[in-house]
Amino acid sequence: MAEKTVKVALLGAGTVGSQTARLLVEQADELARRAGARIELTGVAVLDPNEVNDPWIDKSLLTTETLDLTTRADIVVELIGGIEPARTFVLSALNHGASVVTANKALLAQHGPELYEAAEKNGVDIYFEAAVGGAIPIVRPLRESMVGDRINRIMGIVNGTTNYILDEMTTKGLAFDTVLKDAQAKGFAEADPTADIGGFDAAAKAAIMAVLAFHRDVRMDDVNIEGIEHVTESDIAAARAMNRIIKLLAVVERSEQGITAGVYPVMLPENHQLAKVSGSFNAVFVEGEASDDLMFYGRGAGGAPTASAVAGDIVTVARHRAAGSTGPLIPLYSNEPIVDASEVESSYMMRLSVADAVGVLARVSDIFAKHNISIRAVQQRPEEDENGNHELWITTHNVADRVIRETAEEVSNAKSIGSVLSIMRVFED
Amino acid sequence: MAEKTVKVALLGAGTVGSQTARLLVEQADELARRAGARIELTGVAVLDPNEVNDPWIDKSLLTTETLDLTTRADIVVELIGGIEPARTFVLSALNHGASVVTANKALLAQHGPELYEAAEKNGVDIYFEAAVGGAIPIVRPLRESMVGDRINRIMGIVNGTTNYILDEMTTKGLAFDTVLKDAQAKGFAEADPTADIGGFDAAAKAAIMAVLAFHRDVRMDDVNIEGIEHVTESDIAAARAMNRIIKLLAVVERSEQGITAGVYPVMLPENHQLAKVSGSFNAVFVEGEASDDLMFYGRGAGGAPTASAVAGDIVTVARHRAAGSTGPLIPLYSNEPIVDASEVESSYMMRLSVADAVGVLARVSDIFAKHNISIRAVQQRPEEDENGNHELWITTHNVADRVIRETAEEVSNAKSIGSVLSIMRVFED
Repeated sequence: MAEKTVKVALLGAGTVGSQTARLLVEQADELARRAGARIELTGVAVLDPNEVNDPWIDKSLLTTETLDLTTRADIVVELIGGIEPARTFVLSALNHGASVVTANKALLAQHGPELYEAAEKNGVDIYFEAAVGGAIPIVRPLRESMVGDRINRIMGIVNGTTNYILDEMTTKGLAFDTVLKDAQAKGFAEADPTADIGGFDAAAKAAIMAVLAFHRDVRMDDVNIEGIEHVTESDIAAARAMNRIIKLLAVVERSEQGITAGVYPVMLPENHQLAKVSGSFNAVFVEGEASDDLMFYGRGAGGAPTASAVAGDIVTVARHRAAGSTGPLIPLYSNEPIVDASEVESSYMMRLSVADAVGVLARVSDIFAKHNISIRAVQQRPEEDENGNHELWITTHNVADRVIRETAEEVSNAKSIGSVLSIMRVFED
Repeated sequence: MAEKTVKVALLGAGTVGSQTARLLVEQADELARRAGARIELTGVAVLDPNEVNDPWIDKSLLTTETLDLTTRADIVVELIGGIEPARTFVLSALNHGASVVTANKALLAQHGPELYEAAEKNGVDIYFEAAVGGAIPIVRPLRESMVGDRINRIMGIVNGTTNYILDEMTTKGLAFDTVLKDAQAKGFAEADPTADIGGFDAAAKAAIMAVLAFHRDVRMDDVNIEGIEHVTESDIAAARAMNRIIKLLAVVERSEQGITAGVYPVMLPENHQLAKVSGSFNAVFVEGEASDDLMFYGRGAGGAPTASAVAGDIVTVARHRAAGSTGPLIPLYSNEPIVDASEVESSYMMRLSVADAVGVLARVSDIFAKHNISIRAVQQRPEEDENGNHELWITTHNVADRVIRETAEEVSNAKSIGSVLSIMRVFED
């Protein structure tokens, strides 16, 4: 029988692009059986063709005419990253009737909803499994498997660099700066680590997951972001003393007030599934009304793992092209309000340094009471610092982020109490 | 605009059927937006309409004419279980042009390939996310997300009853029979627990996963099955002493010799991700060539969680019906040989009861050497039983299951060595 052919154009031939090309070429026969069509790599757009030396990429496929390439393929695979010119290329592909596979989280977090709409309008697919959690299938489960359920909360460890840093601080008792420098030397952290340690990379993934989970337009700007720059050795030690582990989480959730998306460090019980995710692994925890708790775990980055997700999307989209169909839409019909994460309640732990814990407790309690914060536990630590001060650890019942911060401010400003060392969310289950 | 309607017939209104109907009815508006079509429950086939009292199931929908119902729906949801008459109903639905959603693992493990072929021939979908791992999206990731990758091994805890029993034995030091009776009393185990503790339920899931992972016809009969009936308190204690946890795993893997599917108890390192899956939770660990290790975790059973997976399939299939398309095929193009699990190599631990460990070790070593088994570690336990015997624990390097069993036989039959208490696979990573 005459076999159908689906033409694939690759934009970018970096680590992920190169590995994606390898999977397409090395497994061509198997993938053809799975897609019901031959998947042919017909062009690879790069900035400098001389820099591409992969044996599985035919030199004749290389081009620097990226925009032109987007107009003559069935599937355009965008692996350039960043907003522009990636956005122009993706829109050109969609408007020329090509389906798009992309791993570009920054682009989707800022312009996803327009791109999903452009794909629908043109009757083509846009798939992006690799944009969240690397090799971990999380986009497709949210987009399809759980589509009959109501998702209430997603919590994810979606940034390997920060997870590695917190892990090293926890297991080796090292300071943030020491671990960061070491991670940079080993290539686990970028020379400019802001996107990772500042929580921005995780925030982009939070925005993408929120759209899929809640069927609402949620963008990067809607995500409250707190990174790990201020997490100290003492925070880690305090968490350990309470049998807790500090993780940087991307959290999107739905409450009666509306939808919230945030990225922040959280103290988790050490037996929580997410507390056990170590090193550069990623994991996403989903709470559905009917499904109950689900967790997805795997490699969140790396050339081959990410390429595995990209190739899975290419085969799925190729199958749709061969069958003349498309996959599920991403309908954004919800207009639930977006609630600032500062208004969302959580338990918190506040660490204070005080000269006289006994005398101070009544005064601190007064300030907490004034802000209507119910205290769940107080611990005075036996250790004395060089000035004879002790640490006082206060764990609260649920209180809004804004309120605990206002309270911390008042405690700091009050005379003869001491200083607030840190405040951090505590998740109990 | 005139809205399309997709007619859904439910076969069975037990726990899962009832919860599925609830999701369809309670979330009708949201699901319509997601599917691009109104999902209308048009019939519910049951044995006795008087036994159905769910407020969300309209009495007028109830029928006992199951076969007839399969001929007049767009989507038939089979939740009856067992081989017949479920197989007849599913085939009738497919042959009448309806898509099928089923949670029936036994049926798929024995007749899956014919049903997948019948669906393809009739141009309709067959979806079965709930058949493996309950609420956990594992079928769709294997069928779609990882379709661009090469899967080398899947190991799953896919039976909650046996996981609960092993967990109780491990954490409370109780005997198998004691825990089983308690589980039966609590409703966590069936009155006839054979399907669970004998490993048959897990084996059905292994067969289904093997088809998806390896694109080959694999049936229940191809799965080597060993249950947990013979796992003793002493096995559990021995595992604990070696920092290991015993789990019943469904394992499907690809080697140079071919494809193997098996169910058996395994000693896992206590820090392995699967060792941490406790109680009635399920988890599936997938090793892909490019993706590396992935894990999927969640509720493996229960009405609402399973219904979440069924409803997700219904929405996906409804969307395909509305768009006039179908989802991915399950192409079975591989003819790799199926290798009996008894020929697959693993590390093993053999526990012996011996009178004089020092004198005996040389003789045991001779027998092992004769079978070409390389010994990795030997431990003589200090504890003495009432006859003054000690336990001797021998951990081997890789050896085929058949060979270790022949060796155990020879050790048992040899004069004045002692008795073989147990042999069990040991997985190192």
